Order: sequence, then structure tokens, then C-alpha cells
Amino acid sequence: MPTRQNLPLSPGILSIIPILYVAWSDSILSPSEMQMIHKNISQLDFLTKDEKKYILAFSDPKSPPSEDVFRQWQKALRMAASSVSPAKASSLVSLGLEMAKTSIDYKKDELYNSPETIQSLIDLQAAFGVNTKESTRILLGYDVAQEESQNNYSFDPQVMAGILDGKNAAIKNEMRKLLRDPYFAHQTIVNKEDYRQRTLDQLKTLAKHGYTSYAFPKEFGGLGKEGQHIAIFETLAYHDLSLTVKLGVQIGLFGGAIAGLGTQIHHKKYLDDLMNMRLLGCFAMTETNHGSNVRGLETTAIYHHDTRSFIINTPHELAGKEYIGNALHCHKAVVFAQLIINGSSKGVHAFMVDVRDEQGNLMPGVRVEDCGYKMGLNGVDNGKLWFDNIEIPKENLLNRYGDVDDSGVYVSDIKSDDKRFFTMLGALVTGRVSVGLAGVSASKVALTIATKYGLNRKQFAAKEGEEERILMDYPSHQHRIIPLIASNYAYGFALDDLAHDLVQDKDHKNRRLIESKAAGLKAMATWLATDTIQECREACGGKGYLAENRFTDLKADSDIFTTFEGDNTVLLQLVAKGLLTHFKKSFHDGGFNSIIRYLGGQISHKFSELNPIYTRNTDTQHLSDRDFHMEAFAYREKKLLYTVSQRMQNFIKRRVDPYEAYLKCQMHLLALAKAYVERLALKSFTRRLETLDNSPEKRVLSKVCDLYAIHILLKHKGWYLENDYMSGVKTKALRRLENKLLQELRPDVEGLVDAFAIPEELLGAKIVLYN
Amino acid sequence: MPTRQNLPLSPGILSIIPILYVAWSDSILSPSEMQMIHKNISQLDFLTKDEKKYILAFSDPKSPPSEDVFRQWQKALRMAASSVSPAKASSLVSLGLEMAKTSIDYKKDELYNSPETIQSLIDLQAAFGVNTKESTRILLGYDVAQEESQNNYSFDPQVMAGILDGKNAAIKNEMRKLLRDPYFAHQTIVNKEDYRQRTLDQLKTLAKHGYTSYAFPKEFGGLGKEGQHIAIFETLAYHDLSLTVKLGVQIGLFGGAIAGLGTQIHHKKYLDDLMNMRLLGCFAMTETNHGSNVRGLETTAIYHHDTRSFIINTPHELAGKEYIGNALHCHKAVVFAQLIINGSSKGVHAFMVDVRDEQGNLMPGVRVEDCGYKMGLNGVDNGKLWFDNIEIPKENLLNRYGDVDDSGVYVSDIKSDDKRFFTMLGALVTGRVSVGLAGVSASKVALTIATKYGLNRKQFAAKEGEEERILMDYPSHQHRIIPLIASNYAYGFALDDLAHDLVQDKDHKNRRLIESKAAGLKAMATWLATDTIQECREACGGKGYLAENRFTDLKADSDIFTTFEGDNTVLLQLVAKGLLTHFKKSFHDGGFNSIIRYLGGQISHKFSELNPIYTRNTDTQHLSDRDFHMEAFAYREKKLLYTVSQRMQNFIKRRVDPYEAYLKCQMHLLALAKAYVERLALKSFTRRLETLDNSPEKRVLSKVCDLYAIHILLKHKGWYLENDYMSGVKTKALRRLENKLLQELRPDVEGLVDAFAIPEELLGAKIVLYN
Repeated sequence: MPTRQNLPLSPGILSIIPILYVAWSDSILSPSEMQMIHKNISQLDFLTKDEKKYILAFSDPKSPPSEDVFRQWQKALRMAASSVSPAKASSLVSLGLEMAKTSIDYKKDELYNSPETIQSLIDLQAAFGVNTKESTRILLGYDVAQEESQNNYSFDPQVMAGILDGKNAAIKNEMRKLLRDPYFAHQTIVNKEDYRQRTLDQLKTLAKHGYTSYAFPKEFGGLGKEGQHIAIFETLAYHDLSLTVKLGVQIGLFGGAIAGLGTQIHHKKYLDDLMNMRLLGCFAMTETNHGSNVRGLETTAIYHHDTRSFIINTPHELAGKEYIGNALHCHKAVVFAQLIINGSSKGVHAFMVDVRDEQGNLMPGVRVEDCGYKMGLNGVDNGKLWFDNIEIPKENLLNRYGDVDDSGVYVSDIKSDDKRFFTMLGALVTGRVSVGLAGVSASKVALTIATKYGLNRKQFAAKEGEEERILMDYPSHQHRIIPLIASNYAYGFALDDLAHDLVQDKDHKNRRLIESKAAGLKAMATWLATDTIQECREACGGKGYLAENRFTDLKADSDIFTTFEGDNTVLLQLVAKGLLTHFKKSFHDGGFNSIIRYLGGQISHKFSELNPIYTRNTDTQHLSDRDFHMEAFAYREKKLLYTVSQRMQNFIKRRVDPYEAYLKCQMHLLALAKAYVERLALKSFTRRLETLDNSPEKRVLSKVCDLYAIHILLKHKGWYLENDYMSGVKTKALRRLENKLLQELRPDVEGLVDAFAIPEELLGAKIVLYN
Repeated sequence: MPTRQNLPLSPGILSIIPILYVAWSDSILSPSEMQMIHKNISQLDFLTKDEKKYILAFSDPKSPPSEDVFRQWQKALRMAASSVSPAKASSLVSLGLEMAKTSIDYKKDELYNSPETIQSLIDLQAAFGVNTKESTRILLGYDVAQEESQNNYSFDPQVMAGILDGKNAAIKNEMRKLLRDPYFAHQTIVNKEDYRQRTLDQLKTLAKHGYTSYAFPKEFGGLGKEGQHIAIFETLAYHDLSLTVKLGVQIGLFGGAIAGLGTQIHHKKYLDDLMNMRLLGCFAMTETNHGSNVRGLETTAIYHHDTRSFIINTPHELAGKEYIGNALHCHKAVVFAQLIINGSSKGVHAFMVDVRDEQGNLMPGVRVEDCGYKMGLNGVDNGKLWFDNIEIPKENLLNRYGDVDDSGVYVSDIKSDDKRFFTMLGALVTGRVSVGLAGVSASKVALTIATKYGLNRKQFAAKEGEEERILMDYPSHQHRIIPLIASNYAYGFALDDLAHDLVQDKDHKNRRLIESKAAGLKAMATWLATDTIQECREACGGKGYLAENRFTDLKADSDIFTTFEGDNTVLLQLVAKGLLTHFKKSFHDGGFNSIIRYLGGQISHKFSELNPIYTRNTDTQHLSDRDFHMEAFAYREKKLLYTVSQRMQNFIKRRVDPYEAYLKCQMHLLALAKAYVERLALKSFTRRLETLDNSPEKRVLSKVCDLYAIHILLKHKGWYLENDYMSGVKTKALRRLENKLLQELRPDVEGLVDAFAIPEELLGAKIVLYN
């Protein structure tokens, strides 16, 4: 029996402090928890009315306890910890009941010891989402956790998770916690209307919890944390890609266009409403006849100076906006149209156009059509939009880069139409980084499921009667899964670095380079996602085909990633153009003449004959040497750049039209772009390794990096052999080294996917949950 | 005005003869047509009651007109053709009306010339599914058709279609005609119950038209045309893969097991009922814990001699049958279980077990659970099945290869348990050939849609103001699409040849080789399908993501092909084992010791140094030489076989356990199997070319074959360079040649997909229909 100590808190509150403390230590209450708490609180008969009020006050995620209150709780807990016997402190409930006894007001012993009270507290504990194991972990420091994580891995997956998560680990963990809530539990919803409604509801819930405000400046009600916004998007992609994309449309595209292309008047008018879901919007850029070729959009916005207005019009059926997310739910659209003034077009600009009134009735002159069922993302309401001569006030032009002045003259700080157009398109860069990251997230989910299944599933024995072999012990299975883990580590690091660079680049000084990297990494990461998810699905056999095991949605939802937010093949051509001009010229379409002219003196890299000792060096130390990897990657990129430049110059010398010359080299340019992006990924991986002190994590991570590098070198062994960069003995030695690495990584493979730190609820796969 | 001629037919009948004749020339009436005819016939006021009866009699697809009647019609038509002016013969209706006038009974001129009559006849013509263009084609020979097909291709797609369709062109065309019927029109049905019901209804319709009877012997009510059965399956895969798979389960697996593993008693009892859908059945082989490893199945069938019965039992939850198609609809199951007699197991055998009574009530002791939503094939009712000590009579053992005699002793003509097991599994071979073909069919649909879209869609111009360029004119687009067309041509030929070999192999003399080929071609063709459909979807951008454009279903439905009917990776290992033993030993799992022993003296192929003139020969004639292709393919296969045999022998010499030795070489074995299958495809392609006389079709087909060969050689250029079979100058020359072939085939690309002869209704893609 502990000594009574005079605490200023009532016994009821004391009994609940362990639960409150743990709930708030975990920093976030989820929607279901809130709901449950409010429901449960009335059942706590042993509490006074004031005590109930006290607890309710601390069950609103938007009103965390003040530091003083939190310190008071800590003090009470510390006192209890010293006096309560460890046996009694084994659960939050019994600890709380012991603490209640320390209050000076503690009287009704029988009330606090009744089975009803204990059950009520257990329910409350559940409502707060604090399960005993984790709670104890938090209360007692991390001793339990460390004990638990002692698997047979050579490293600690939790530490590795920190390395993977990078600078935004905190918000990512907060999202993980939020998304584990049953409210977000995976469901197979085949009816699109139901799925869209749920997606909209969940988006509103995210807004209620403040997760839609990170991207916007503080002065307009946002949190001004773009990096964390990207991290939220990335983590949301573990859960449901419809919700992720819907958030992307509302916040990234619609909100992003207003923030990026509008001026203060628009920011004030719209941002707060849109981040709080009072204003739903869509981003009406793509038209049926013009997808990749944005410059060719046909929707017009003709300026009328007499009325100080624009007339927005869809000139013909196939100039309608298509695939527009949020089309069925939105109030307003940011419409991209040719700004025409005095009969001449100033190029594509963005305009705010009303689509529906507040009651959801369609505005006159707007026609909307559902895109119907899609391969995936059926929680997103994609539609088509047509505008029939709709008049909008002049102020609805998002006028940051181009405007019509009071005298009716078009004005812009950017003189070149080309440059203005590409500056406006720059608004897409965050979307591309985000989609790349979402692709990696989807891959991580697939890899976690397939790896855990592959470690559990057995099939075939060496001899009849012997135990069957674990799938992951088959070399074929290791070859399917582990190089994909390594590649996703690499692209995860590269995109994380890029997101960081993007956020840092406030003055747009490195914009050209960042846009190129975003285009390239988006393309390669989303193709990697398609390949990864497919391989993982097949690696799970029939189980992988059942909707209950998640691949159905992962595959179908992520499939569009390769062609939206920029078609991958088109994006890689932009990257190649950037490389040709060392990112000095506009890297978007057009301008071939100038690019070719630019090539003239710029690229004169000579490739000397390689030393045969080098090309035939099969020493393991050499083959595992990061410098060798980096050099081999760089050599390929440089030589592709050099040879394609030469080819194009030769075409020009023979007076071939520059565009035709470009087409003749198209496959060569695509190979160059891919080589560049593969090197970027290796560079980020290497850089991340350099930041680490020697540790078990660094050791295994270095092997994963080796595997990525060697896997890519082997993928291109034909090229390296063709170009005499390596001899056959060397490529064969690399293959042996890859096999060796796979065997070495095999015991750590579960740790490597555990480091993705995707909670089981978020994986949402029965084959994992029931393992 | 034609001269009246005394014909024995009444004017009403004469007026309809052109329609009847064309309908029956086309040889098949579809379900919608039948329904429409019955509906329309009452509206034909100008017909007498007898005339109506006459027509009704000829609108049942199961009662074709006799040869005499048909000849009578022909005679009437021929007479009319000579007398009716061509202008009047421009439609079936006007021709019919002119013919009516030739009857001796022709009186009521005004009746036959009334607008109502003409409209009625036009409606009837539509009901019979004979549209004027096609009808005229049939009546006037093929003149119109030839005129129509004069596109800009260098060859005639219709002739090419005949080459692709091979020996079973007639039944394939019959199926194409049937499936164009609106009854089979594509729908997006997201609710699985609705989709399953529709699939079951369509299967019953196929049965009503007799398309489920081809696989079975005539003596039991079938048509005894297995080759045509496979062709039906293949063509059905253009339409809906759920229906295709459902047919495969009912006829191929359930029916096939009874036909192949049962004896006359079972054939008599079940075959007629099952081909007419009075008896629905499932094929309960796979268990949750045992998929690929069929030999390890845990369901037991214990023989009790006192009651002359077996007790079928699922020993534990995870020994339940899983993924079983038709599980929710079936009356009976063929259950694969360990036959246990006097306490010892005789291995896996098949048993007839009642699942539901005729009213659809579940039998006692059977538990069924829905597999729920799947990635695709949601029209197939896959489920799980558990059996709780169900007693079945001894006769329910499908006893062709093993039986229990009257004294209760197990007897079998096949002494070796191993051999018996693999003989029984041989029943799966037709399924594998069929699935491979269905994979190619799905690819063909995807390629047709993507090619037509790529020829219609424009994006980006060289300069602003110029016309945008057709997607298919971009080299990147040609590289995406055309090699896949070539590969699907190759695998189509190989599978067509294999299906033919299978049907010919009545005495099972070539069984081992056919099984190997089926395993290998199934694996490679279904992976090709996955790749093809994915590439085609991406090549259509956002349009490819909409359900209305077919890729949604194609991709999701065909995805399981890579892991069902034998997991592809497992199948390729069987192929490799077959190669190691020259198809002399059982190629299924197990038996490694003997395979390794077998290797001893068998493989001693020596690889002499290659002539450097050969390895560096970049002459176009040499690179396009079929002998060079065949030799290069064969060299790779032989060398892989030689080196893997050597490696395994070396392991054995070092006393490595044979199974471990096999695992160490697993990736090598997989490469060998793939090389073998790639060569098979080239060989079939080459053989098909050799059967053709010189013609435009042969010319273009030869280029397609070049492209397939060179595409595969380039895919493996790393290997060829590593093994000094080719030098870098040669692989680079091959790449140039591939580019040249793509350009040469570009003008013919639409013809190449038109040769798949998939009617637009069957493509079911809006982007094609509205082009």
C-alpha cells in the first residue's frame, strides 16, 4: 500500500492521468478515438461532473494540454512510479487506480475498486487508443521496445526507419498513428459513388485535424511548412491512393495554383476556405485533345475591356477539360485557357471559374460529365468540363505572371511568352515530387506484404517427408524481391533529397535543375512502382490476386502515376533536353533550334581508351567500391550525352531539320535521361550513407546500396560490354557478387521492410495480419 | 420489270429468302438475333400464318435448313439475280420484294410495296443480324470486301487473318460473329454477384448454342473436336475473360478431369449433363497450404472396405481448397485427395463429391466460403471448400489410373506412384495451352486498341502553328508497340502449333515434350500478355485508364494468368528439368538425384571458338538471315544447357546435396528455360512462313519475324557479348536494323492488328469505336 501524498488533483483525474499522459505523449488523437472518448465519458460513473469536463477538455486534438498541465501529470506519474509497486503499474488502469488513492480527496474505496470502474477505465484506455504494450513502453522509457525489436536482424529497423524518414520523421510518424485509426481501415468499396463519398469525408477529416494547412503561408491561415505537407502526402499513400490524390488535387493543384499563380487578393479570398474544405476546387488544365501538349490548349479566355471581364469558352467538344479530379464535388475550377486580348493570344493563363454554387447546383454555362469507372482511384471524382461563354470578372485571372492593366493592356514582368509559360508550369513541380514519393510509398507497401508472405509461405521440400522450404530461401524469390527493395531505398532517398531542395529553393535559383530532377525521378520512381507492385503481386501467387491482400488497389490505383502529372516518356525527354543544355535553357518542349545551336561548342568531352586492367578487374573489393559504381554510372551518362550530341550535330551539318534530328535520336535521348536519373538515385543513396556514423544500420545500408548499384550495372551490362567499359569476365563477376549480396541480405530482409515502418493496419493485407 | 417465273414458293417466303439465305450463309444465329426474330415476326402483316411458321422454323440455330432447302433458296436467288436489275438488288429487302413478284401467287402489289412492309423487312433484316454491306458481300461473292479492304497496307489483313487463325479459322470466325451480338456487349459490372450471374447466364447461352460440347467424345454427346474447343476458348478471350475462365473451369477442368481421369461409368453419368449445364462442377485441387506443390495436398480420402466407400476429409483449416472456380454455383466437385487404404497413402487421386443438391442447397459436411473480390475475373465465383468426413461410394473415385478392386485392394496399371501422379497431372496440359492462347488473345485486344489510338492521336508539333504529330510516328511509340505485335505473332503461332500437336497426340507418345512446351509457352505467353497490356495501357495515356476503354478489365483479368494453372516460375523450372533430361524423364518436381545422375554422360556438347568474322559480321543480309537468327537462338540455349549441366555436375562432385545444387543453379535454369521457349516461338514463326507461297502477306510477315528475332537478340545482347558470340559492332548493327524494321513496318502497323480480326464490338473500347 503506497503512502498517501497530498496532490492537488482529484482522485478521478488522478486515475485517468496515465491514460491522458500516454495519449498525449503519442501526440495525436485520431477521429475514432475522439468519438469513442465522448461516448465513453458518460459511462464513467465514478467521476464527478467536473472530472468529466476536465477529461473532455483534453480529448480534443486541437487543444493539447498546456506545458504546465503536462508537467503536472508528469510529476504525479513520477511520484506514483516511485511508490506504486511494479506489479500494480503493469497497466495504465491499475496504475491510475493506485494514483487515485494518493489524492487527499480519496474516499470511496469500493467505488474505485468495483469491476464496473475497472471496465470503464479499460474501455476509456481503448478509446484513447493507448494499448498497454505501447503505453508501458512510453511510461517506462523504451526498454520494452528495445527488447521487442530484438529480432535476428543485424540492425535495428526502428533506427533504420529514422534514416529513411529523414528530416520529416515526426510528421510521418504522426500520420502513421492517425492512419492506424479504424476510421481509416481499408475497405473494398466497388461502387464509385460510395467510394467518392468516403474519400471526401476522409479528406474533410484530415482538414479538421489540420493536415491540409501545411502547404500554405502563415499569413493566410496555413502553417507554412511545405516540406511537411509533402511528407503528409507521402505517408498518406501508404493508406489509400484515392484519398492521397484527392488531397493532391484540392491542396496541391487547386490550392497550389491559387497560391503560386495568384496574388494576394486571391490568397486572401480563397486559401483559408480551401484548406478548410469550405471551398472545393479542381485544376482544369488537361483537355481531351491536349494532354502533354499544354501549350496547345484550346479553351479561350477573351478579354472584354468594356465589361472588365473575360469570356471563358470551350470551342468544341474535344477541347473540353478531361480527367479533372474533384469535378463532381467542386465549387470552383482553376481553368487554364488561352488569354486573348485584342485578338491576339498571350498564351495559357489560369482563371477562377465558378462551377457550382454553395448548394452544389451547377452554374449556368458549365457542363460536367463523369469520367465513369476507372482502372483505379475510383474514390476520386474525375470528370469532364465544358464552358459555354461564361463571363468572369477580370480579377479572376490569377495574375502573378501576367495581367491586364486598368487601361486594358496586357502586362507581364516576364517578357518572353515562352519563359512566362514555363514559369507558370513550374507550379507542377511539387506535384511531380509528391507523385514520385507516393509511388515509392505504394512500392513499400507491396514490398512489405510480399516479403512477409515470402518469409511465411513454404512450398516444396527437397525430398518427400522433409519440411517444405520457405519461399524467400529460393534464389529466384530473392532475385525478385531484394533488388526491388534496394531500388526503392535509392529512389526514396533521391526524392527525399529533392523535396528538401525544392522547399529550400525559395528564390527559385535552382528551379531549372529541380524541375529536371522532378521530371526524371517522377518518371523512374513511378515505373519502378508499377514493376515492384507487379512483381510483389506475382510473388504472392493466388493470395496476391485477392482484394483482401491489397495488391488489387495498389496496382490499379498507382497505374495512372506513369502517365499523369506528366507522361513518363514525355518527362524523360524534358530531362534529356535539360542535360543537353546543362539545365541552362528552358527544358520544356519546343526550342529545338536553339538547343541544337547550344550544343555546338559545349560538349567536347573526350573518352579515352580505358585501361584493360580496369575493364577486366574482377576483384570483389573493386566491384564493391562506391567510387567504381559512381564512375561507371557517370561514364555511361556522359558517354550517352556525348554521343547523342554528336549525332544531333551531324544531322544538323547534313541540314536535317532540328525536330527531325531530335526524333531520330529520341530513343538515345530517353536512354540518356534514364542513365542520369539512375545516377541521381545512387548519388542520393551514397550521400545519405556519408551522413551516418559507423553502425549496424550503416553496414547493412551500404550493402543495400551496393546491391542497387550492381543491379543497375547488370541491367545495362549489354551497354557496358558494347562500349568496352567492362569485359565479360567483369560482368560475370558482378553477377556473382549480386548473388552473394542477396544471400548476405537475406537474413535482414524483414528488417529492411520493417524499416518502412508501415503499421499492419495500414498494410491492410490479410496474409500479413494473420501471419 | 422482271419476267414472272413460276416458283413453288409463296411470295412472302420469296421476299424473305435473301435475308434467310444470308443469315444461314453466315452459319450462325446469335441469341439476340433469335429473340428479335421471334419478336419481329408477328409484325410482318403481309405474311400469311404459314409463311410466318416457315420463317420461324428457320430462326432456330439448332435447326439449320436442310441442304435441299438451302439449294432451293440458292436457285431462287440465282434466278432473281439474272432478272432483277442491279439497282434493285442493292439491298436484301428490295431484292426480296422483287423476288416476291416472281411468285405465281403474287397478287397484292400494294401490300408488298407499302412503307410498313418495307420497314418490317428492314427490321427483320436487322433482327437476323445481316447488315447490308456484309450481305451484299455474301450474295455477290467477295468483290465488295476486297474493295473495302484496300487500305494503304502492303498486304491484305483478311488474308493475314487466315494465316494467323490457322486450321481452326472457321470456328474462330463463327465465334467472332456470335460474340458481336449485343447480348455479349461489354459492360462495367462492379458488383460481383451481378457479374457472376451474367457470366453464368452467358455460359448457359454458349451451351445452348452447342459451344460447350466440342471437347468431349461423340459417344457421350460431344462433338469430339478438341482442337475446335481450344479455338473457342481462345476466341472467347477477346470478349470477357471471366466467361472464358468459367468455361475453362466447367468444361476444361471439371469436364476434363472426368473425361481424362474417369472411366466409362463416369463419362456416361456426367458428361452430357455437364456440357449442357445441368450439372455445374468445380475442380478442387489447390489447397491454401499447397498450391504449386500438388503432391503435398492434405485432403484425405480414406477407403472403408466394409461400406465400399471413401471418407473425404479436410484435416485442418489451411488444408481447405482455395481459389476454386464455380465454388458458389457448382453441384459437384472433383476433389483431389490422398487416397489412403489400409493406413497407407497411394498418392493424390480425384473423387466426385456432392457439393449442392439440385435446388442449390449445400450438402451436409461441406463448407463453402466466397473468396470475395479479386483483382479481376470478378465474374468467376471463386471460393474455398472444406469437407468434414463426407462419405462417398467407391464408384466416385475417378479410376482410370488407379482403383480399388472388389476385394478392397488398390490396383493400378501404372506401378510407379510417381509416374501415376504425373500421368494424372497431365490432365492439366490442355488448360495450360488454352491459358497461353487466352493470354495472346488479351494481348491482341490491347494491341489493336493501342495501335488504333496511336494512329489517331496527335500531340506536339515541330513548331507552333504546324500540325501535331501522330503518336505512332514517334520512334518511342513504335518501339513500345511494334515489337510487342511481333512477339505476340510469334507466341500465337507457337501456341497454335502446340494445340495442334496436342490434339494429334492421341496415343500420348509425345506427351512429355508437349507438357514441357505447354509449361514453357504458357509461362512466357502470359508474361508477355502482362507486359503487352501494361505497355498498351500506358501508350493510351489517361484514355487507357478509363474503364470504358477496356484496359481496366484486360489488365486485371489477365493478371492471374501468370500464377494460375501453374505458377510461371515453377513451370519454367519444369521446362529446365525437361531440357536437362532431353524430355526423357518425368519433368515434374522431385527426382533430383536421378536427374543429376542422368546428366553424367549426356551433355558433352563442346563450344568451339567462334570465327571473329562471324562475331563481327554487320552485313544487313547476314543480320536478316533466318539461319543466323535460328543459330543464335539455338547457340544460347545449348550453351546455357551445357554450362548449367557442368555447374551441377561440379557441385555433385564436391558432394553438394543435389537439391542444394539445383537451388544454386536456379537462376541459370530459369534463363535456360526462357531461351528454349524463345527459340520455340521463333521456330513456329519460321515454320509458318515456310508454308506460305510468295505473297505480300509473306513479305510483311517475314519482316515481323525478323523483328521478333532481332528484338530478342537485343534483349540478350549482354549475354551474347559476354559470351563473345557477337561483338559490339554487331549488336550495334542489330539495333540499327531494328530501327529500320520499325520504320518499314510502320505503314503496315494497322494492317497487322486488323489481321487479329477482332470486331469493334469485341474490342469494346470507346476510343476505337468513336475514331
